[in-house]
Amino acid sequence: MKKITACLLAGAALTLALPASAQFAKAEDAIKYRKSAMFVMQENFVRVARMAGGKLPFDAKVAAESAAVADYMAKLPWTGFVTGTDKGDTRAKSEIWTERAQFDDYARKMQFEMSKLAVAAKSGNLDNIKLAVNATGEHCQSCHDDFRAK
Amino acid sequence: MKKITACLLAGAALTLALPASAQFAKAEDAIKYRKSAMFVMQENFVRVARMAGGKLPFDAKVAAESAAVADYMAKLPWTGFVTGTDKGDTRAKSEIWTERAQFDDYARKMQFEMSKLAVAAKSGNLDNIKLAVNATGEHCQSCHDDFRAK
Repeated sequence: MKKITACLLAGAALTLALPASAQFAKAEDAIKYRKSAMFVMQENFVRVARMAGGKLPFDAKVAAESAAVADYMAKLPWTGFVTGTDKGDTRAKSEIWTERAQFDDYARKMQFEMSKLAVAAKSGNLDNIKLAVNATGEHCQSCHDDFRAK
Repeated sequence: MKKITACLLAGAALTLALPASAQFAKAEDAIKYRKSAMFVMQENFVRVARMAGGKLPFDAKVAAESAAVADYMAKLPWTGFVTGTDKGDTRAKSEIWTERAQFDDYARKMQFEMSKLAVAAKSGNLDNIKLAVNATGEHCQSCHDDFRAK
């Protein structure tokens, strides 16, 4: 199990590999990029979460598609956290850059939980979806608590 | 013609399949969703386009990864074009909803060209990338000319 997790985390690292320096023309583009990717992820995740919580009728096909998009999107925001982009239209705390290892760890764990949610949603088992929604949401929250301004 | 359009719309429905009614809690969420997805697509596409145009050093790995993300993102904005969302923080013209078949046709063609760009970028051949960037860019532009306010 530890080995599987390590492999998945290594896989996650591969997707974060683009050199940040070459990514964005301006700091505000980097900020807008990560916020945009987060929003697309969030909309899809929340749709599944609302189904899991009985606030939206459960539609297995929509849940599976939405979770798959959320899983993909979970890989994208991180290149936008370029050094020096804690100023501007953002709630990102400067601790992201002074405690980067912790931040990256949250990011990796969230991606891992989101990938499990995608698997659960694909299977169509609502109980598994609920568990995975909760686990993913907890990881979102932990990171927001530590690294996002109120 | 009507039948063909219906078939094409059914085809589009495969990628766009989520029932629009269940997608977004508010009209402004739908608008923000499509703009966010477009922005993430655009940032990745423009990175490849700048490499193709010699404005950024060509990095085959970054180009391939960016084009793959742009290709994925090209599938996402369309669910956000919910009826009644031509008002608010958007430049979407109301013609999107009165000439929907034309809009959907542009959307499909752009997705097709973007998928060819992803293939070209994966192959690493800069000449093919240039051709695919131009073809994709033309389809972006045609749709913006007709359906996006200045």
